[in-house]
Formats: sequence, C-alpha cells, structure tokens
Amino acid sequence: MNIGIVGVTGYSGMVLYSFLINHSEVDHIYLYGNQQNEEPRRLTDEVPAFGMSEQMIYPFDSKKVMEQVDCLFFATPSGIASQLADEFIQCGFPVIDLSGDYRLSSSDEYDTWYGQPNRTLPDAAKVTYGLSEFTKSYATYVANPGCYATAALLALAPLAIEGWLDPTSIIIDAKSGVSGSGKKLAPTSQFTFINENAWVYKLNQHQHIPEMVQQLHQWDQEIEAIQFSTTLLPITRGLIANQYVRLKKQVTQEELNQLYQSYYQASQFVRFKEQHLPTIKEVTGSNFCDIGLVMNEATQVVTIVSVIDNLVKGAAGQAVQNFNKLFGFEESTGLPLLPQFP
Amino acid sequence: MNIGIVGVTGYSGMVLYSFLINHSEVDHIYLYGNQQNEEPRRLTDEVPAFGMSEQMIYPFDSKKVMEQVDCLFFATPSGIASQLADEFIQCGFPVIDLSGDYRLSSSDEYDTWYGQPNRTLPDAAKVTYGLSEFTKSYATYVANPGCYATAALLALAPLAIEGWLDPTSIIIDAKSGVSGSGKKLAPTSQFTFINENAWVYKLNQHQHIPEMVQQLHQWDQEIEAIQFSTTLLPITRGLIANQYVRLKKQVTQEELNQLYQSYYQASQFVRFKEQHLPTIKEVTGSNFCDIGLVMNEATQVVTIVSVIDNLVKGAAGQAVQNFNKLFGFEESTGLPLLPQFP
Amino acid sequence: MNIGIVGVTGYSGMVLYSFLINHSEVDHIYLYGNQQNEEPRRLTDEVPAFGMSEQMIYPFDSKKVMEQVDCLFFATPSGIASQLADEFIQCGFPVIDLSGDYRLSSSDEYDTWYGQPNRTLPDAAKVTYGLSEFTKSYATYVANPGCYATAALLALAPLAIEGWLDPTSIIIDAKSGVSGSGKKLAPTSQFTFINENAWVYKLNQHQHIPEMVQQLHQWDQEIEAIQFSTTLLPITRGLIANQYVRLKKQVTQEELNQLYQSYYQASQFVRFKEQHLPTIKEVTGSNFCDIGLVMNEATQVVTIVSVIDNLVKGAAGQAVQNFNKLFGFEESTGLPLLPQFP
Amino acid sequence: MNIGIVGVTGYSGMVLYSFLINHSEVDHIYLYGNQQNEEPRRLTDEVPAFGMSEQMIYPFDSKKVMEQVDCLFFATPSGIASQLADEFIQCGFPVIDLSGDYRLSSSDEYDTWYGQPNRTLPDAAKVTYGLSEFTKSYATYVANPGCYATAALLALAPLAIEGWLDPTSIIIDAKSGVSGSGKKLAPTSQFTFINENAWVYKLNQHQHIPEMVQQLHQWDQEIEAIQFSTTLLPITRGLIANQYVRLKKQVTQEELNQLYQSYYQASQFVRFKEQHLPTIKEVTGSNFCDIGLVMNEATQVVTIVSVIDNLVKGAAGQAVQNFNKLFGFEESTGLPLLPQFP
Repeated sequence: MNIGIVGVTGYSGMVLYSFLINHSEVDHIYLYGNQQNEEPRRLTDEVPAFGMSEQMIYPFDSKKVMEQVDCLFFATPSGIASQLADEFIQCGFPVIDLSGDYRLSSSDEYDTWYGQPNRTLPDAAKVTYGLSEFTKSYATYVANPGCYATAALLALAPLAIEGWLDPTSIIIDAKSGVSGSGKKLAPTSQFTFINENAWVYKLNQHQHIPEMVQQLHQWDQEIEAIQFSTTLLPITRGLIANQYVRLKKQVTQEELNQLYQSYYQASQFVRFKEQHLPTIKEVTGSNFCDIGLVMNEATQVVTIVSVIDNLVKGAAGQAVQNFNKLFGFEESTGLPLLPQFP
Repeated sequence: MNIGIVGVTGYSGMVLYSFLINHSEVDHIYLYGNQQNEEPRRLTDEVPAFGMSEQMIYPFDSKKVMEQVDCLFFATPSGIASQLADEFIQCGFPVIDLSGDYRLSSSDEYDTWYGQPNRTLPDAAKVTYGLSEFTKSYATYVANPGCYATAALLALAPLAIEGWLDPTSIIIDAKSGVSGSGKKLAPTSQFTFINENAWVYKLNQHQHIPEMVQQLHQWDQEIEAIQFSTTLLPITRGLIANQYVRLKKQVTQEELNQLYQSYYQASQFVRFKEQHLPTIKEVTGSNFCDIGLVMNEATQVVTIVSVIDNLVKGAAGQAVQNFNKLFGFEESTGLPLLPQFP
Repeated sequence: MNIGIVGVTGYSGMVLYSFLINHSEVDHIYLYGNQQNEEPRRLTDEVPAFGMSEQMIYPFDSKKVMEQVDCLFFATPSGIASQLADEFIQCGFPVIDLSGDYRLSSSDEYDTWYGQPNRTLPDAAKVTYGLSEFTKSYATYVANPGCYATAALLALAPLAIEGWLDPTSIIIDAKSGVSGSGKKLAPTSQFTFINENAWVYKLNQHQHIPEMVQQLHQWDQEIEAIQFSTTLLPITRGLIANQYVRLKKQVTQEELNQLYQSYYQASQFVRFKEQHLPTIKEVTGSNFCDIGLVMNEATQVVTIVSVIDNLVKGAAGQAVQNFNKLFGFEESTGLPLLPQFP
Repeated sequence: MNIGIVGVTGYSGMVLYSFLINHSEVDHIYLYGNQQNEEPRRLTDEVPAFGMSEQMIYPFDSKKVMEQVDCLFFATPSGIASQLADEFIQCGFPVIDLSGDYRLSSSDEYDTWYGQPNRTLPDAAKVTYGLSEFTKSYATYVANPGCYATAALLALAPLAIEGWLDPTSIIIDAKSGVSGSGKKLAPTSQFTFINENAWVYKLNQHQHIPEMVQQLHQWDQEIEAIQFSTTLLPITRGLIANQYVRLKKQVTQEELNQLYQSYYQASQFVRFKEQHLPTIKEVTGSNFCDIGLVMNEATQVVTIVSVIDNLVKGAAGQAVQNFNKLFGFEESTGLPLLPQFP
C-alpha cells in the first residue's frame, strides 16, 4: 500500500519516515508540505541526514492525496490538521494524526488549552484516541496521543482501570528532552540556555493535561484533575515521568508488581521491570515504554517511573503501531526491535 | 586567621579552596589528607586545574592541626569526620563539617541511613545544624546541610514555620548533577551512562531524607515523613527541586508571594522570584538559592521550585557562609557576587 | 545460518547484536563470553536495555562454537582474539574480528603499539583487512578496521590511490565520542571529566596510526608516516576527522569533487557531499561515512572532513557489511537505511 | 573610577560585568544599550541570573558617556563599535573594544572578512591590538583580540618571535563552545543541532584568520598565510586549539619546553605545562591560557595544544587585563584566581 506524510521535515515526521521506509507493507511514501501553493522541494535539501534519496515534498492537495495514498499521517504542529483534515474525516479516509488537534472531545478545552477557538468537532465515533495498548477498536481517524500523556497513562492505567487510585492524589513530575518542543527557533531551545540547565515550563498549563484527565476519567470517573509539571532536560530525545499516587486500599509491593505484570505481560512494547527503575537510554530509538514502581511504607505513596523516547513511543512509533493495528498488520511491523544503545 | 581543609581533592573541597583563597579574613590555608601516614602531596599534582600553586597536602594529625589553624573544614565523604572529629568537638575547636556525619541527632538514624552503626553522638548542644538562613546561634561544631536538604528546606521553610502545611502531603521531586555523587569511579558516573539519560536513584532511600524530616519536624511537629525522590541529570553542577504540597488553609498566590517575600527579603542569598520559575544556570557558581512557586486552583497543590549549585549553596558556599556567621564576618565574605553565566 | 558473538556486553557487541537480530539471513545468534569457565549469564541481566530476551551468554569453547555457528564475531577488547582465534584461522573458519588483534602485518608493530609482544602472525593470505569499500576479495578471517582508521582512510583513499598526495604532508585531527574508549571504568570516562570539556589523548601514540600508515602505504608507497591526533568529545557516539593534505599537482575544487564523486557514486554507504561539510549527527546510528572537502587557494591545503558513527561504520556496522560481502549477501542486509535523526 | 559597558546583555558583556563589579578600582558601572532612542531597561529583566541588582541600561549618548565614565567597554557584535567609536578615538578617550571592529590595519580586509565596506580607519597609532602578554605600550583605544586568535597566537608566539617556524607549515585546528557565536537565535545554535554533534564551520572563511596572520606576520615577516579550521562543540564555554607546525631547524622536545618556559614563566595567566596536555575545563571561568606541546620524531611536526575560556581570556577577562595594563593597575585585579572546577 501507499502512504502519505504531511510534515516530514519536523522531528516526528523525520522519525516516522525512517520507520515507514522500512515497513514491509508500505510500497511507496508520498511526502506533502502543509500548504497548497508551495514549490516542490527535495527531501534531502531539507534533511541532509537523509542523504541520497530522490524523494520530493509536494504541496498539499487533498484530492490528489486521496488518489495517491491509502493512509495519511499528519506530523504537523497543532493547528494544521484541524484546518486540513475535515474532508478526510467526513469521507472515512484513514488518517493517523500525530498532532493534538483531535485528541480532546470538548471544543471548550481546545479553546482553553490550544488556543483553537470556535472548533466544531466531528462526531466522536469518527475519531479514536489511539493509546495503542488500550485501544480496542479503531475509527478511520486516529488521534495519536501526546508524548507526556503516553508515558503517564501507561504508568497509571492498571491502577486507574482497577479503581485503586485515590482520585485526588495524582501528582506527575515529568521531564523531557528538547526535541519535544519541535524545530522552531526559540531562546529556550538554544544550546546555551538548556545545556547544564533544567527548566520547569508551562507549569499547570501544559496542553497534555486535559488529554490525560480525559482518559483517566474514562477509566475511573472519580478522577477529575491531576497535578502535572514538566521539566526541560539537556538531552535531545527521551522522556521520564514520576507518578506519585496514594491508593484507596492497602496493597503490598508484591501485589502491585503482580497487577502490572498481568496488565503488560502480553504487551510487545511495555516492559514492566520488577527489580529495576527504568532509565531513558534503555528505550531511546525504540517504541518501548519501560515502567518500574516502588511502594513507600512510610508515606503510603506509590512512585511509578515510566520512560519513553518522546519521538518514538511518544510520537512516530506509536503512530506506526496504531497504523499497524488499524490495518490489521502485526503490531511491531516497521518498528525497531531494540533501542539504540549505548 | 588560618584555616585548614581536610579533603581538598574532592569536588566540595576544590570549590571550598577556591572560595577561601579569596577570603579577606583568611591569611593561610593548610591542606590535610584524611590519613595519618600518607606522604605529603602537591595540590597541583592532584588538581592540575589549580595550576601554579605551591600548596602541599599534609597527613592529618589532630595535634598539629590545632596548632596550625583556627578553624577546620571537613570536605570528606561520610564516615571520615565521625572518625576524626571527636577530639575537636570535645575541646570546642571550631569545625565546619560538610559531610553528613553530624547532621542527625539520632544514632539509630545513622545506622539506618548511613550504615554507621554504634555511633555515640556528642552532646547535642555541641553541634549546630547550619542552615545559614535559619540558624541563629552557633556551637563550635557546625554540621553543614546536605545539598538536597538545603534546596528543599529553604523552599518549605516559610510554610513549615507558619504551620500552613498539610503535614502528610509533602512530595519532593529533586534532580541533581553528577558532581553530587563525588569523584569515586562508578558505572553510573560514566559519561556513556548518564549522557542523554536521566536516572531515578535511591528512591525512598536517600540519606538526606532523615535530615529533612528532622528539620521540618522541628519547625512543625506534625510533620513526620516526606516523599522524596532524586533523579540524576546529565549536568555537572546544579540541583533543582520541585516541592508539591497542600495547605491546611485556603490561600491565594498573592498571599504566598507575600509570605516568601517577607521571609527572604533580607536574605543575601535566597532570591524569591515572583514572576519567574528559577532555572539551575541562573545560580551556577554562586551561593544563591532561587525560589519560585505556583498555586494550582484546580488541584489546590502548591508547587515550589528551588534551585542551587549543589557544590556551592549545597556544600562549599554554605560552609563559607556558616564560617562567616560563626566568626562574625560579613555573611558574603569570600563568596562570588554573581553566578557564572552563561 | 547461525552466527556467534564473543563480547556482546561491550559497546560494539551490543550494536552488533542489535543489527544481527534484524538480519534476514541470520537464523539464530549464539552469545559467548571470552572465558571458558564462567557461568552462563542472561543477556538481559547484563544489558537491561535489551529487555525481554531469553538469550543466554555461554562460556567460550572453540569446539562447541564451531559446531553451533557458521560465522563468529569477536567484539572484544584488544588482546582477547589473539588468544582465542588461532584455531579458527588455521582451519579456515569464518571470523569477523572487530578488535585490533589481526589488523597489522608486522609483529613488531603489535609489540610497539598494542603491547602484544612475541606475536607469531598467521600467513598473511589467511587474514583480510576489511575496509569494505576497497576490499575486493576476502579470506575467511576478516580484521575489521578501527574507527579512526575507517574515517581517515575513506577520506584519503581517492587521493592516495591516484597518487596525488604530497606524501609527507598528511595531518589528521580526529575527534571521537566517549563510547570509543569502551565500557571500562576510567577517570577520563567519567561525566564530570569530559562533560563541558575536550581532551587531546594518546597524541602520536594511538594504535590506529600504524593501521592507517599500512593501508596508505599499500595505496601509495611514498607514504611512510602521518601526523595524527585524537580529541575526546563530550558526546557518546560519533567521530569526525579533519584531514589536511597538500597535493603533488595543482587541482581545482571541481576536479576534487569529480574525483570523489567517481570513487563513491556507486557506494551505498559513503556519501560525498559537494556543497555541505558533514556533521556527526547526520550519520549517527547508521553505517554511513559522509565526506566533504574544501581546497584553500591561499595555502594550497585541502581539508577533507569525514564523519562516521564510531560504533557502526567504525565497528559493528562495517562488521556486518564485511559479513555480507564475505558470504555474498546484499551489502546492506541488516543495516539501518537511515541515521537516527534528530 | 567609573566605567561604562555597551552590550552587557551579550555573553561577553555579562561576564565582563561580573568581573568589573568585583574590581577594586572600579567605583561605579554605567550600562548602555547600543542605540540612542531606546527606553531605559532594568538589567535584571534582561539577565535574570543577575538577580537583585538595581542597575539600569541607558540609551547610548556619547556626550553623556564621556561625562559619566573614565573608560568605556564595547562588548558588542561586529559592526556596532565602528559606528559609535570614532568620536572616542579622535579625542583619545579610553576604550576597550571587545569586538573585531578595530583589530585589522587594512580597510580592504574589513570589507573581505567582516563585510564592512568603505571603512576609513583611524591613524594606526591611535589603536592598540591588546594581546596582553605581548603588548608593551597602549594607545587609548584597545582592540581586544578574538578568542581563536588569542589561543592560537599565545601558542605560536615563542616560535614565531624566535623565527623558528617553517612559515608555510602552520595548520590550526580549533574547536569552540556555542557561546562563541553569541546570543542570536540560529538553527546551528539550537540544542537539537549541536548536542551529540560537531560541526566544521566557516572553513577558510573565519574572520579571525586575517587577525592571526597580521600578528604572526609582525612577529615573523615570512609568515603570509595559515590554514585554519573551526569546529563547533557541544559545550557552552571553552576553546581548544591544536597548532601543527614544522620548524626550520632541528630541535628537541627539551629545547621546546625551555623556550616556552622562558617566554611564559613570568606570566600570571599563561601556564605552560610540561608533562600534561591541557583540557578546557582546567581553565573554564578563569583568565588562564594553558599550553602543552609534543614534538613527533617520526613526522617532525610539533603539535601545540592551547585552551582558554572563550568568554574570559578570549573576551571579557583579557579585556579586564588590558584595562588593568592601560591604567597601570595590577594585571590580575578583578579577575578570578582559579577556574570554576569541576
């Protein structure tokens, strides 16, 4: 089959492209810019690292796209897909959208958190929030989860689904590499700013907050809010999240281990580690989410640590995983078997 | 006056030396190793960065030390001062101890957290825990606080002293640079391990936990435990701590700002920043602790962010500050006026 | 076919394993330690990043190895293969040796540069130096080139082979990431040493010098020596080398471009870039060697810049490439199509 | 005395300010922007790291400047001083100019290397190129050397002045941290670009080339050109340069050591290290230039390694050193005694 990518020159788009050219079910990849009237550009002029390819990036034209490809990926900053995707949603054309534009089910929330006012959202049945490990059935339009949301939700899912969480206790302290902020020039993306530094940003204001609350609330309707902070780290790729929670019932470390083992033992990409708190580098370049946890007897707080590569499981990798599930391919097709280590 | 340093070849010792050679009240610095029978060594062979100095490091001999110097600094790993210091304590000889060996008032705690069994502690009146901003009177033996403890206690002090904290709510997520683990070779100190990585270590087991609880409990006797985690960051110097707390009473952001302003406006080294969450680099190389905070209306959680240079305000800088206070010198004598920025 | 790896827990071994489990011609991988009497160990205990695998590492037993596998890889520090490989060489068993133990054709040189005295070298016809782009026929024992040698030789090959080089003019200033020094603990591998630093090491004493001179001399017998320096950089992976040379004849930038294009246009892994000096990140994770060059009219010096991932084209990737060539597989089988970027 | 700084919000300006507020001969510092009609700004709004200061930055007005201060520092990007300084030069007002605007003695060179056409240069006697260790008498206008030029010239000075250099043999491979490119946003200053990377830039085109050739030519009139390359490193501060040279006469390592010792033994800031190649971190934060060298018997090439902090000895520190020499203060007044280490 043929697939299309809008936004290949962004970080998620690059990684997505590098997976899909290696995907055994993909015959050809068409690349599109996000504007109608731009000139065709060579991929290798935009991304010299991709070297000797002849690939061109063509202007976006929805009619042509539908003719050329069987599935379209949006790897665009927020605000682009919401302008281009409606036609695809309406006619049930398969789309995997890596952006945040269709993750929330409330137009008010888009206004508040994304500054996207006056959104008319499509019929909820036409869009699936694709948290691959927990999504059972797929609509044709898949909203790929945010990177922070992926790490936090996979860490909390067993406790939330079981209803064990004290619903007001959830505090998430997440840290991410600089690639998470995209390619746009900004003072806070400069080497001299973030090297040898760490920076707490968007405190209580990060747009992944409503996405996490929406999903947690679906799992456990008592959950209405979370405390969430994000720290920018001097690394390029990777994300680590510490989840601090209290439970409604007394449980042991052993019971927690068993719960997580039972949830994730069949998963190809979530590795629950009983004896070992995960580190970022153990997943870099891969689609893995590694999880470890420790119950503190003194405080009755459970600390759950989860790590992902923000551009893979937090973006392009999960997009491919959703693509595979949507089309019935084996879930790991096209994805790396191991992290790039060391 | 003359001062002595035991442990100048460790990271805290190096920084301490670089401050004290610049201290207007210090005439001569004597350097000692922590063993009795070692050969004298040249400082510049041990620390080539210190270049052209003629300074020698002599074996430790308590009698000679007391003859040569007027105040002794221990910049040694834990377990050294507890073997060498007793004589100095007993005769009231001025000592600033940067290690953890005399911070706790319970010998059981030393056994549990430091693996130092069978400690007989000196009379509590003979040792002062020197959190400079809050210590009013000094015994001759000063236990300099740990780096994590300094950042967390300065962040929590106003709320703890006022009795505003929900005593069971305190969660601290702290992150530190690699110099915090000292110079000893370890797999987790290697560049290939921690570069492009982040690692949660000693979860619920860090030896600064009892030190923080001891001080918080002194401020507010309802506080018995804290949830504390530490993440190793790929930076050399610096420490950032996020404190998450709930309060007993409803307060506004404005009231919190006023509280912190009133506590710290007279302080030379704690900078409360109303409109700006602090970053590590804004204090690197300096004795500053910068603090910012945000009240979240949705969760009623207050997030307090504090940053220090772990080797300065978290070690050598606060040691000099305590030295100045102990001897009645101006508090900032010998300390840098500004961070090394950028 | 089945293959074996000795030394999978080293950096090159890890990367080699991650390529070979993805290699369409490899059915099973057997892992061996480099000692005879060690206990079997689990791969995932040694390399937690490799997660959920059941692979065991067995003690090395040459008889068993020959029964179990069709080709053996040594990914061991220098000094190991020279002790274990002789049997394999004598009976013509296929081996790819990533170490330096069989790269040189003079036993004196091993004594001088590797501290391996009293070496009796095998018949030269039984060992091939496998610089993949230039090696035409393979003996069964392949000595995989060193990382620095690979980057420098690919940069100099066209000029050396054509005989254009002023043979006494060659100066190479190379820089490498820390993974190049392997996993062994060392003060100079610590984060606090090399972060925010750069260190010139083994000046005029690096063991890749005789390897480069040997190959250059084979191409152009006037070349007897090179000036070579290495700088350790605060990065984990990657190597960049600046080659400074003068030529025997007057040539233009355009002629140099044409020469390099003609040498490398058919190569899958060497990308000559006419308008663009290469950077390390454009090849990280891939088997590419990117090359750019500039003729300086004022000094008549040609600067050739080459970059590789030291663990891929400089080690495990080229090993797989040599393996593919030795067995007649397509040259890129098992190797990543694109770098991990960004 | 009072001094003024134009450009305190740039990296060199920040460091300069942090030295001068600590300078025993400076009573007051006036800060100026580089435009006439801008609004006064608070220093701490521009540089939050500088914390609690009341300092304002006022618009530049040459008349007022001359009234308020006794010496003016330009810490501005190239192209600013050349527009503002003429008046100061003409009336002999003391200026230390950290920019490149008055370093060259040929207006053609400014056009070629700086893109500053139509420059009318002042009488050469009115401007001094202030390479502190070698400048004997000062005009009132001091052109502070460039960072690369400082490191290379101090490394080559003894050989050039003695006339030992083969004048066509000089090859300099220099590497610098990102702060060298200033604060301006650029794709190549982004963390995601340069982290885990190294980039050869401005090859044969760097504006410090003519500055180095001019000074070398003054020392040894046979020197007409140098081969010079610059690599951007993933560090914030620091610069290391490898100088490769051949000599006219046969000399031993010992003779070279003696030569350098004799040139630098009286210097406070150049540390020649006989047994030890210098590393960047050993000088970071200080005004030191550390130098080491090795003669290669096989190639007859001498490699001289020099390191500086590009913002200190390569900019603000040397500026203060020149200021001290110009006004007859002790050379190290206001400068740190030791590097910030580790």
